[in-house]
Amino acid sequence: MSEKTPEVVIIGGGFGGLNAAQKLSKYPVHVTVIDRKNRHTFQPLLYQVATAGLSPGEIAAPIRGILKNHKRLRVLMGEVVGFDLARKKVSLRDGSDIPYDYLVVAAGATHSYFGHPEWEELAPGLKELEDATEIRRQVLLAFELAERRAAMTGKAEPVHFVIVGGGPTGVELAGTLAEIARKTMAGDFDYINPKDTRILLIEGGPRLLAAYTEDLSESAKRQLMKLGVDVMTSSGVTSIEPGQVKVGEQVFPSTVTLWAAGVAASPLGKALGVETDKPGRVIVNPDLSVPGHPEVFVIGDLANFKDQKTGKPLGGVAPVAIQQGQFVAKNIGRAVRGEPMQKFHYWDKGTMATIGRAAAVAQIGKLHLSGFVAWFMWLFVHLMYLVGFRNRLLVLIEWGWAYLTYQRSARLITGSNRLPGWIAQQEMHEDKLPSAEQLHEEASKAAD
Amino acid sequence: MSEKTPEVVIIGGGFGGLNAAQKLSKYPVHVTVIDRKNRHTFQPLLYQVATAGLSPGEIAAPIRGILKNHKRLRVLMGEVVGFDLARKKVSLRDGSDIPYDYLVVAAGATHSYFGHPEWEELAPGLKELEDATEIRRQVLLAFELAERRAAMTGKAEPVHFVIVGGGPTGVELAGTLAEIARKTMAGDFDYINPKDTRILLIEGGPRLLAAYTEDLSESAKRQLMKLGVDVMTSSGVTSIEPGQVKVGEQVFPSTVTLWAAGVAASPLGKALGVETDKPGRVIVNPDLSVPGHPEVFVIGDLANFKDQKTGKPLGGVAPVAIQQGQFVAKNIGRAVRGEPMQKFHYWDKGTMATIGRAAAVAQIGKLHLSGFVAWFMWLFVHLMYLVGFRNRLLVLIEWGWAYLTYQRSARLITGSNRLPGWIAQQEMHEDKLPSAEQLHEEASKAAD
Repeated sequence: MSEKTPEVVIIGGGFGGLNAAQKLSKYPVHVTVIDRKNRHTFQPLLYQVATAGLSPGEIAAPIRGILKNHKRLRVLMGEVVGFDLARKKVSLRDGSDIPYDYLVVAAGATHSYFGHPEWEELAPGLKELEDATEIRRQVLLAFELAERRAAMTGKAEPVHFVIVGGGPTGVELAGTLAEIARKTMAGDFDYINPKDTRILLIEGGPRLLAAYTEDLSESAKRQLMKLGVDVMTSSGVTSIEPGQVKVGEQVFPSTVTLWAAGVAASPLGKALGVETDKPGRVIVNPDLSVPGHPEVFVIGDLANFKDQKTGKPLGGVAPVAIQQGQFVAKNIGRAVRGEPMQKFHYWDKGTMATIGRAAAVAQIGKLHLSGFVAWFMWLFVHLMYLVGFRNRLLVLIEWGWAYLTYQRSARLITGSNRLPGWIAQQEMHEDKLPSAEQLHEEASKAAD
Repeated sequence: MSEKTPEVVIIGGGFGGLNAAQKLSKYPVHVTVIDRKNRHTFQPLLYQVATAGLSPGEIAAPIRGILKNHKRLRVLMGEVVGFDLARKKVSLRDGSDIPYDYLVVAAGATHSYFGHPEWEELAPGLKELEDATEIRRQVLLAFELAERRAAMTGKAEPVHFVIVGGGPTGVELAGTLAEIARKTMAGDFDYINPKDTRILLIEGGPRLLAAYTEDLSESAKRQLMKLGVDVMTSSGVTSIEPGQVKVGEQVFPSTVTLWAAGVAASPLGKALGVETDKPGRVIVNPDLSVPGHPEVFVIGDLANFKDQKTGKPLGGVAPVAIQQGQFVAKNIGRAVRGEPMQKFHYWDKGTMATIGRAAAVAQIGKLHLSGFVAWFMWLFVHLMYLVGFRNRLLVLIEWGWAYLTYQRSARLITGSNRLPGWIAQQEMHEDKLPSAEQLHEEASKAAD
């Protein structure tokens, strides 16, 4: 044991960083957790915020609060901009340096628009709470504006949602939007019929949920189509424009386009100056350290760790980050005691994706589940992993309420009043309203 | 009864507009509710969103959802920009006109900075959900940045909150911020002690809660001071600057300044082209109609209605708007049946303001209550008036949880990463971090 207490700096308060921090508090080290945000976000439920089912406060908690009972641990809100691996220092945006003896980089991932940065404005992705409330705003605004336009022109035009990317996020968004349109919103409008909403899910690869087995991909597709989602596979989007999406020569109208296709690692991966793969993930050693720096570890979505069983890199999912966070803490504990580091092995407990009400797929070893059973398991597992008893209870109530009433609780359009560019454009061409009397005629007849 | 069904247009989905709409559905009229937002916000609990106790979704609900079971009623999201009272038309931002036979203007109020619009940037007010999340952001950021600065300089400087305006909103904000600092945040930081936070409430008039009796004003002041709030009365703020607030020659440091002083009526009051008072409220007839236009009514915060008992205009509180909304609906019902309109009488069921945990004041006729009893009544009444069973249940759980644990559930810094101007300025002058080791020394000694 060295004389001075070793300093461990963890970058990122996601699943990886939090689990590393919690585990490290058992070892004789000082821990500093640095994050740009003050909160941990439960990313697997972000799509429910985007679709107005949960509130941001229900899936997020302050990092400082989560870690408050851990000893020798501090939390700093700040933005890391670079590293000096030789001098063992982390640089923050404000110019200050933080020294470390061990460094854990768990900075996660962001969207990638495959070399089309101009698509970002037209097709928001879903990585942060702010993304989720922006998507919620656009989805709800789409119905409100369609209603007003129909009231003005007397002609109802359906809302079109196009989701690009058929991974878990795309599947979840498509299924939930279908439920909103067909159930939640069904009776709320006078001029449009939300049931006419078209939802199109476009996947570039040959099947949805590529990380799952083929039978589950097929099942997910069937369950989505039963909800009224159109699914296109082997279809690469070639252009995203205001109001439409193109796949080669085919043009699809789109009121709101959502991006669930590309993921890129945090730029902090490249900032380490070690080898990265194409999406920018750091290629790590079997003990999760980076080549040449046994005291620097990269975990979670930012790490490219080759699975011994499959020979492929592990996917960017929460269980990988959690296990790597805990493992890296143990390895640091070993190093501090002068013991050799061990190799990381991922224990795959299974994966699951939800599609909608009582619709999901789950793959647990050789067990493949679909429909209600998979959905119920999904609910249970996600509730269990949510941080904090209070959040669990609130989410349980929201879900129970939603299941019984088909209502979504967080139907709020917040933030700027700015409309997505192309919708604002359409607004310019709106005609005068016909008399409300004229348009109410039918409703009136029914009611009198 | 006239042959064609009369058209009633209601502007605003607040307490006044919603109650008018709900009541009107009993009469043979068509109703159009127009609001810039898609939601009704329960304004009396906005300060709890601003202080991280509740989430936006828990105090707001979509107007369309609230009114979905009412017949002959439509909801349009849109911005009203003007009126043509002669031709009985309302103009929307997009250029369309909506004709009416009866018009109810319930557009509410906004902040007024008493001729100092430049203060708005430095001292946010609290009227909308977006204001509340902005205040929450600034309050939480203040602690985070103070912690980081203390970690860097080794010198802890207390956070200062200055609240301008000692009405119910100012009192609620001051009391709740005191609780956050002394209880919620108490154990969460390593370098600063949130208990050192200074909270200063500045009121221009001679006492807090001017609408209440003197003994209750005095009680509110005592309860606030017990929570550790400094209260200054008869003190007009003369200048708000980055980092400080001036009252004449006195200068008070202020990390975050909040504005709870001035209220101005919606500009739609003036747009009606009838007489308004100084804050821009429309001076209405005893039946709530505007002079010269018996078919046009103004209600709620936008109306200046002289109370028969006191001879003073009714205050801008929810019960007034609710009663006026219901009353105006009945008057329209009478007009449709060819009966004469009646005069509005306000039934004052009492008023109450909360100060903190088990701290409040209530004035119900001759009954004056303080402390726990008033607070418990406040909780009960506010829960009852919250729209929707689900919201009530969630808020009840949040409050129960907060009461037991002292925790605030919605401690999220969301929105832009932009810092309030003056904080960003300070960041430029930050020094280098000392080694974490050095600063952890004490904690380490205690733990080893």
